Amino acid sequence: MMEFSIKRDYFITQLNDTLKAISPRTTLPILTGIKIEATNEGIVLTGSDSEISIEITIPNEVDGEEIVEVKEPGSVVLPGRFFVDIIKKLPGTEVKLSTNDQFQTLITSGHSEFNLSGLDPDQYPLLPQVSSDDALQLPIKVLKNIIAQTNFAVSTSETRPVLTGVNWLIQENELICTATDSHRLAVRKLKLEEDIEDKNVIIPGKALAELNKIMTENEDHIDIFFASNQVLFRVGNINFISRLLEGHYPDTSRLFPENYEIKLGLNNHDFYHAIDRASLLAREGGNNVIKLSTGDSLVELSSTSPEIGTVKEEVTANDVEGGNLKISFNSKYMMDALKAIDNDEVEVEFFGTMKPFILKPKDDDTVTQLILPIRTY
Amino acid sequence: MMEFSIKRDYFITQLNDTLKAISPRTTLPILTGIKIEATNEGIVLTGSDSEISIEITIPNEVDGEEIVEVKEPGSVVLPGRFFVDIIKKLPGTEVKLSTNDQFQTLITSGHSEFNLSGLDPDQYPLLPQVSSDDALQLPIKVLKNIIAQTNFAVSTSETRPVLTGVNWLIQENELICTATDSHRLAVRKLKLEEDIEDKNVIIPGKALAELNKIMTENEDHIDIFFASNQVLFRVGNINFISRLLEGHYPDTSRLFPENYEIKLGLNNHDFYHAIDRASLLAREGGNNVIKLSTGDSLVELSSTSPEIGTVKEEVTANDVEGGNLKISFNSKYMMDALKAIDNDEVEVEFFGTMKPFILKPKDDDTVTQLILPIRTY
Repeated sequence: MMEFSIKRDYFITQLNDTLKAISPRTTLPILTGIKIEATNEGIVLTGSDSEISIEITIPNEVDGEEIVEVKEPGSVVLPGRFFVDIIKKLPGTEVKLSTNDQFQTLITSGHSEFNLSGLDPDQYPLLPQVSSDDALQLPIKVLKNIIAQTNFAVSTSETRPVLTGVNWLIQENELICTATDSHRLAVRKLKLEEDIEDKNVIIPGKALAELNKIMTENEDHIDIFFASNQVLFRVGNINFISRLLEGHYPDTSRLFPENYEIKLGLNNHDFYHAIDRASLLAREGGNNVIKLSTGDSLVELSSTSPEIGTVKEEVTANDVEGGNLKISFNSKYMMDALKAIDNDEVEVEFFGTMKPFILKPKDDDTVTQLILPIRTY
Repeated sequence: MMEFSIKRDYFITQLNDTLKAISPRTTLPILTGIKIEATNEGIVLTGSDSEISIEITIPNEVDGEEIVEVKEPGSVVLPGRFFVDIIKKLPGTEVKLSTNDQFQTLITSGHSEFNLSGLDPDQYPLLPQVSSDDALQLPIKVLKNIIAQTNFAVSTSETRPVLTGVNWLIQENELICTATDSHRLAVRKLKLEEDIEDKNVIIPGKALAELNKIMTENEDHIDIFFASNQVLFRVGNINFISRLLEGHYPDTSRLFPENYEIKLGLNNHDFYHAIDRASLLAREGGNNVIKLSTGDSLVELSSTSPEIGTVKEEVTANDVEGGNLKISFNSKYMMDALKAIDNDEVEVEFFGTMKPFILKPKDDDTVTQLILPIRTY
């Protein structure tokens, strides 16, 4: 028989974040709902799709302003998306919620009155408990960067489930994040400032994408706690919990060829846009193939679609080492890799027409993007 | 063997507008293309889906700035959406186009070079000629208003094709625009300032929706020319041509009941949002039904979804004439009608539980919205 009132605009923000964990396609119907728990300390909202869970605590006061007034502690599960739509459209600045012992929930605001059938919160799955010691703390900006530089390269196919996640390897106080779909590979390295135990886990790519949407730069830092098969990200009043992927992540170090034949220094923006234009025809050709040929400082990109026509782009390299080469690649992989390189100057190392090539920011070894070529020549 | 160069940003704007007439689903393949004609006066772009056609003239100079330089007049048809994507992504501020006698078209800008297979412009259908006398001139704002107040009510079903259009009736220097899908009806009247011949035409709703997207308020007025089975809208450098629907539009005047039982004066905003909230449950119920009951100045709205719950909304009327009534209606029709009433105060006239009811802006007879109730009581 819970009863509380809450400031509506603040409630909406927190509900929207909780909703990010909820999937309309779930095998467990109660997981389409949001669990709402009123305690003497405030309100706790929980959403989950059983892969990821989000738990948000709304305190009674924020910056000295009263947000929540709990008249009677208790809890209920209400239909998620639906409940959030109602709260968004209510007329008043405050909303009152009260439940009866059948979990019927009365929602009132202004001259508006909704009566919803709620569910028994005891039926809602318990969230995994993750112990709160041995945290890895990262600045939000850095974590957003790591996600942007690796997560795009995870596999979308379930043939090898471990490849749908990003491998986080912590050893000797260095974090190495690796993602690959076996056509391209992204690596981001980060020296850690604090001492932290070695770890080797695989975080699902989808979870990292959702986490990225929730992290705003209102907060400076995020705390990350690892358990045997779960990881907890804590940012401000939000707990974001994801299961870890089981299995062994492949050793990718042997994929890197050694001793490049050709190394080009290119302007990232110019190179990206030339590929973007060439990809217009590559897409129509159906296979996204772009041909690249180097000759001194001139890099020529070309693509053909038999029905529509041809395109030729020229980019001038700032630096060139080595001779001439022709190579073909998937334009999408190249554009993804260039976007992940957070630098105006990009270095491309080629090892031969049939060998993977490597992209890096100039004078920076923290990001490496590797792409397998396509056999056309 | 056309050849010209053109300022790219200006070209993009005009191409985007031309594209609005082009449908990827067309029975005539050449209509997926844009016809480009270079003359000594400038460039003419044409797009068409055979129902509507858009013809845009780009003059050599705009506001004293040179936009186009034609080296050799000529014409070609290029793949529409594809060509526009290329122009958008080119690197330079200028684009050069030149064709050979096989309609192969070379497009260059900066270090970028596209070679597209064009089509013979003689294969492109001729646009209907609409004579340019006896124009109806309307301010853009007024035409946008007329479209917003009527077009939503056209039928989306092809069972009675005339109902997919808006009836424009000009008689005794008054324009009367009527749209109905046989569940609700929208009428907008406008006194014309100039003498104009009587007309009775049906303009396709889809054409009016596209026209609405093209009319910006950069221009003040639009000129409208009627031919036997076409209508031409001319705004600035754009000719927008639509075919008219054939057939007789039904006489809708007999639908209007007389002598209301109850008349309510309501705040449009409050009433709209109360219905919007009630419709959350009405939608889930599957049929959008909202019940309304009046009692003195209190209007109660309610809706029920057996699975989810119930909602009750109260709105206080500013004015009430007549007694009590219960009536049910489709929430979407009501919200559409209220949106079309461009006034803070709306008057609702009820003629009985089973009879259509009428919405009007307060003290204004130019807009009338009629809705048929749903039998539930």
